[in-house]
Amino acid sequence: MSVRQLIIAALFAVIGAVSAQAADLAARIGAPLEVAGVAVRRPGRARAVAVDPGLITTDAMALVSRDDVDIVVEVIGGIEPARSLLLTALRARKAVVTANKALLAEDGMTLHSAARSAGADLYYEASVAGAIPLLRPLRESLAGDAVHRVLGIVNGTTNYILDQMDTSGAGFADALEEAQALGYAEADPTADVEGFDAAAKAAILAQLAFHTPVSAADVHREGITWVTPGDIASARALGHVVKLLAICERGNGGVSVRVHPAMIPRSHPLAGVREAYNAVFVEAESAGRLMFYGAGAGGVPTASAVLGDIVAVARNRLAGTRGPDATTYADLPALPMGQARTRYHIALDVADKPGVLARVAEAFARHDVSIQAVRQEGRGDDAQLVIVTHTAPDAALASCVTDLDTMDVVRAVASVMRVEGESDE
Amino acid sequence: MSVRQLIIAALFAVIGAVSAQAADLAARIGAPLEVAGVAVRRPGRARAVAVDPGLITTDAMALVSRDDVDIVVEVIGGIEPARSLLLTALRARKAVVTANKALLAEDGMTLHSAARSAGADLYYEASVAGAIPLLRPLRESLAGDAVHRVLGIVNGTTNYILDQMDTSGAGFADALEEAQALGYAEADPTADVEGFDAAAKAAILAQLAFHTPVSAADVHREGITWVTPGDIASARALGHVVKLLAICERGNGGVSVRVHPAMIPRSHPLAGVREAYNAVFVEAESAGRLMFYGAGAGGVPTASAVLGDIVAVARNRLAGTRGPDATTYADLPALPMGQARTRYHIALDVADKPGVLARVAEAFARHDVSIQAVRQEGRGDDAQLVIVTHTAPDAALASCVTDLDTMDVVRAVASVMRVEGESDE
Repeated sequence: MSVRQLIIAALFAVIGAVSAQAADLAARIGAPLEVAGVAVRRPGRARAVAVDPGLITTDAMALVSRDDVDIVVEVIGGIEPARSLLLTALRARKAVVTANKALLAEDGMTLHSAARSAGADLYYEASVAGAIPLLRPLRESLAGDAVHRVLGIVNGTTNYILDQMDTSGAGFADALEEAQALGYAEADPTADVEGFDAAAKAAILAQLAFHTPVSAADVHREGITWVTPGDIASARALGHVVKLLAICERGNGGVSVRVHPAMIPRSHPLAGVREAYNAVFVEAESAGRLMFYGAGAGGVPTASAVLGDIVAVARNRLAGTRGPDATTYADLPALPMGQARTRYHIALDVADKPGVLARVAEAFARHDVSIQAVRQEGRGDDAQLVIVTHTAPDAALASCVTDLDTMDVVRAVASVMRVEGESDE
Repeated sequence: MSVRQLIIAALFAVIGAVSAQAADLAARIGAPLEVAGVAVRRPGRARAVAVDPGLITTDAMALVSRDDVDIVVEVIGGIEPARSLLLTALRARKAVVTANKALLAEDGMTLHSAARSAGADLYYEASVAGAIPLLRPLRESLAGDAVHRVLGIVNGTTNYILDQMDTSGAGFADALEEAQALGYAEADPTADVEGFDAAAKAAILAQLAFHTPVSAADVHREGITWVTPGDIASARALGHVVKLLAICERGNGGVSVRVHPAMIPRSHPLAGVREAYNAVFVEAESAGRLMFYGAGAGGVPTASAVLGDIVAVARNRLAGTRGPDATTYADLPALPMGQARTRYHIALDVADKPGVLARVAEAFARHDVSIQAVRQEGRGDDAQLVIVTHTAPDAALASCVTDLDTMDVVRAVASVMRVEGESDE
């Protein structure tokens, strides 16, 4: 028996790997893989991987509708036409392998529901953290466990920029420019540096970790463009490092999913994730603290993840079964950011005179925010008050900062950043 | 349909979890799990988890031979009677879930072969690195990739001891005593500190990474008892840290599997693995560098891994299929330690006088070992020459050290340790 496979391709590395490793893949799957067709937008374009011209078509919909196709591999990205193509494939009981994080984040539940109704597989390991085997462990190995929290560095571009700022003292603009020169950042870096890419991945992680519908619109998102060398230096003084984190938490009767820069202790396993690497840190009831680390992007790692999924769904297909259902069986509300519980690091430019600390402390007390540590740096007119709070609702912390900003003893709120990755008691 | 399950138990946490999470497990599996029996050595013993006394038996062989049992879960450890019980179970086409690293390392190929012949599942995620989902990614997600090297911190006790030596400057004996007081080390710590535990896990990792038979006897093994505060300080001076590594490499027409202390750069992701945590670093052709991090031991993490395996084999059972075959399809020889390629860090107590470096360098040249860096520390009679080599066969490095030891300009070979985890070019 042969599993016929359809590739809707932008990622020719997948096609290259399928033919280069044909014998090995057949041994692992138990039957040969056959490429039934490749849909492309520009059929005449020169490509690094040779594909039989007879397999190439521009009519993707006709290809996914063919009766002789078992598996549809989608790597074109974007919402449409990917969504229509994949829904057509799933409804026709074809297995789907995709790397499309935008689609899964925006409308994953529609895809999952179509897959479940049809009894078809929907695999998407490549959509988050590239080649790191991450979604499968969340979906399978931790199936008997309860995940409390996921902290992820899921965007390599921003990690590279923040790592550069930390090691060289560069400002954001210079670090971005270097990342662009090295190919780590796009000419238009908005999707990365404003956190859109990380937010889509956070939604997918939350769906899988908590078995509940979460879409990109539910994710609170802040990018890294406002992070200054001063913030990085403040983090360093605290023994921390600044990372753009995707945070998924369960609690207060719902889930909180957010993407923002945060200070984490240098002793935290995520702090050692350098350059453009990705890592996802999971806290689960039984398994404890786990971390998955690796290359987050790039054609070859992505192809590796897609290939692993193809092997899995092809094996399921041959066995007449499908993988564990990754879809919803809880229906937890996504909580607004104001209800997320976090800690703040706040640096205030103040006048160094008696009574300032009392006035500032009073403001925190008014908002029911408890202070963990205060440190004064500098003297006289250059004094800075550095405050780290205990955990409190984000809304209380934010309105406390708003208040501080209007106080006459506070010249300026120099830096505000959330602190994550450690218990505060 | 109900999947009947047999537990040969020492780890009652598994039974506790199966009953506590019955509804959730049934939803994930698609059928309820039923505990068919529990074999124990001492039926009258008080236990933390309540088990129906009618299920308890001392006749494990009768239990694994019962027709109405689908899955055998073995957590007793050791070679016999575990091997006979599991072979009986596999030959009767029952799925096996085990945490038995000693048995898999010594005789994994016999078990795999019985599983393959019978078409039965053999899962053992808990045998290496506790709850870290590691074997499944090696077996499934990286199924389409070629693994070049695995570097693992797979023994929590020795990592705790080395971490203590690094952070507090303690000697081995004091750090061991502290580890024992905290319950991280056994009263008889031999299996951990002499590297036996890590060697068994290295064999299992090599089997899965390279799809080839490797047994514990093929693993070169050195413990950490000879590591001194001086070695730790030397590593620190080099910007490195000392870890007990399980190293599996493919090359030179075979596989090299070894366990020994080694210096790794502090910037390496494994360097940040603190306390009793475990982590396994994988270098693969397509996926690149990956790392899996988490708790390596403990009843609850182990139970979590066993439970994940139970869910997987139960699902396979219901679908009438089995998981990907993890057994041999290469038959690569295990290379002797002398052929392993590594680098040495060597500290020599020498007299600070002209001509010493020339004589020492000559010795390296005689053994065809290339020197990457030399540093002299101290002066006069207290001079120490610190040498880091380029990569060379271990046999050449070892005989070079033997030569150095007999040279009159060398007062003593103060420290010799391998250096891993970075390219040396």
